Amino acid sequence: METKQVVSMQVMMGCTRNCEPCPKYFDCSSKLKYDIYNTPALRKIEARLSKIKYKLAIMSGKGGVGKSTSTGMLAYALNLLGRRVGVLDSDFYGPSQATIMGVFGQRMEVGPDGLLPLANAQGIKVASVASTLGETDYVTWMGDQIRWALYSFLGNTEWGDLDYLLIDLPPGTGEETLNVMKAIRGLSGGVIVTIPSEVSQVVVGRGIMLCKRAETRILGLIENMGTLTCPKCQSDIDVFMVGGGKRVAEKMGVHFFGTVPLDKRVSEACDEGIPYMVKFPDTDASRRFMEIAREVIEQVEGVRAG
Amino acid sequence: METKQVVSMQVMMGCTRNCEPCPKYFDCSSKLKYDIYNTPALRKIEARLSKIKYKLAIMSGKGGVGKSTSTGMLAYALNLLGRRVGVLDSDFYGPSQATIMGVFGQRMEVGPDGLLPLANAQGIKVASVASTLGETDYVTWMGDQIRWALYSFLGNTEWGDLDYLLIDLPPGTGEETLNVMKAIRGLSGGVIVTIPSEVSQVVVGRGIMLCKRAETRILGLIENMGTLTCPKCQSDIDVFMVGGGKRVAEKMGVHFFGTVPLDKRVSEACDEGIPYMVKFPDTDASRRFMEIAREVIEQVEGVRAG
Repeated sequence: METKQVVSMQVMMGCTRNCEPCPKYFDCSSKLKYDIYNTPALRKIEARLSKIKYKLAIMSGKGGVGKSTSTGMLAYALNLLGRRVGVLDSDFYGPSQATIMGVFGQRMEVGPDGLLPLANAQGIKVASVASTLGETDYVTWMGDQIRWALYSFLGNTEWGDLDYLLIDLPPGTGEETLNVMKAIRGLSGGVIVTIPSEVSQVVVGRGIMLCKRAETRILGLIENMGTLTCPKCQSDIDVFMVGGGKRVAEKMGVHFFGTVPLDKRVSEACDEGIPYMVKFPDTDASRRFMEIAREVIEQVEGVRAG
Repeated sequence: METKQVVSMQVMMGCTRNCEPCPKYFDCSSKLKYDIYNTPALRKIEARLSKIKYKLAIMSGKGGVGKSTSTGMLAYALNLLGRRVGVLDSDFYGPSQATIMGVFGQRMEVGPDGLLPLANAQGIKVASVASTLGETDYVTWMGDQIRWALYSFLGNTEWGDLDYLLIDLPPGTGEETLNVMKAIRGLSGGVIVTIPSEVSQVVVGRGIMLCKRAETRILGLIENMGTLTCPKCQSDIDVFMVGGGKRVAEKMGVHFFGTVPLDKRVSEACDEGIPYMVKFPDTDASRRFMEIAREVIEQVEGVRAG
């Protein structure tokens, strides 16, 4: 054929003058832009979260890299370092924090001041936006419905006083992630989770860009599922390759929290809902997560914890 | 407190009489429901895909379970069994089929009949809806935009004659997955991919329910990332536990394709874009993928392949 033409797909994104659901909100510099945090729904959320000192968002470029696991481990670690911790699972489709935190099957109740997060055995508060969905419900939410359900949930949940709220974002950098990041004002920082294989790094860049445009300080990047140690012969096995996370952190100018080794006892502990680093305090994975928690505290509070 | 009350979050989903983007389309039995396949956009897609014998959707309950890897392995296996294969990557955010199929960095061109899928070294045709996004673009699409971009892509891509088109669905069972399943009429079947850990199985049930309501025959469930063999001492390591996929398949009455062992050479081959089962034909993972491909052919074509 004669005509060689490279295609670039364009989708028109005209201004609808409705800033609140707009995916370009963080980027927009139009004079028509209004302050979405002055709307009743977002003011209500801000008031609800006002007694929380630090709000951290845990994000991933793609799913299945252990974002929820890392959120859970970080929650347990901050708790062990004496902080009052809450965990918000903001994924409507794959809620896993209830399992990881050991409160699976319990339902949130309504107190005089609003919906009450569950408290686990360690005193960590847990709330999941999907906590009211049945186990085998097949639910597909439309963009706007999911946003309003999120607002309703966040605007009615009473966390009380907390040092840290860890927000387990939906996987990826799509509309649902953006909705959560827009709904919660004043994030103290973002933590990005990835795995070592190269094929996962393209989308990590998008996550970093999203934080930058949302003016959310990136605390650092965790490379999860690193080298596995054979339980029998103690040899090292790089199941998902080596170093992709470190390379992308360097390339994008982001702090590298280090590599958490792959350890099947971590996923076992998550399935059982018990704190891995209490059961196995002397493993490399425990030491790494405790050190990440100390680095988070250092960056956010400016002090070095125990 | 006195009042104990269990909360169930309700989001009103009134009928908008717009069936085409409606997430309840597959479930709806309203008299107001119209046949979306009679609309110009979906008729155009149907015409474009008319020379493809079998269209299979590969789905996962959650991300990161190896859905894209399994799609790629299945494509290579069907190709080795003499079938003409195409792979459609329908994920706008985490396109990985270009890498896995070894055509990363190449751009689709326009021929006289439309957009042309890339052909890899094995002759497998590859097209990615995200192929026109830049590497570090941070793009958040709104539901409707993503749907129209998908329609435009599918309605303009000319696959030609194929035996199999493998559709790598977006992760999860959300709106984006639903959009792809709605856009492509006459799926010959769905393949569900999961990993062994229990925490992943809740969402697998949702995927199975979605196929059932969309009247898509489920060919079976692949349990990926099974037992790893230590390359040094040959001992077995169950990194992500054992048997969760088999249990959920039995519980939901779905065929079990078996467990694919975790093998780091699979992710290495995917990063390199070469067919793993050509390089390592005698491994357990290769044999399992080849057998899955034979079972797929048996179910779909009613014949036993090579």
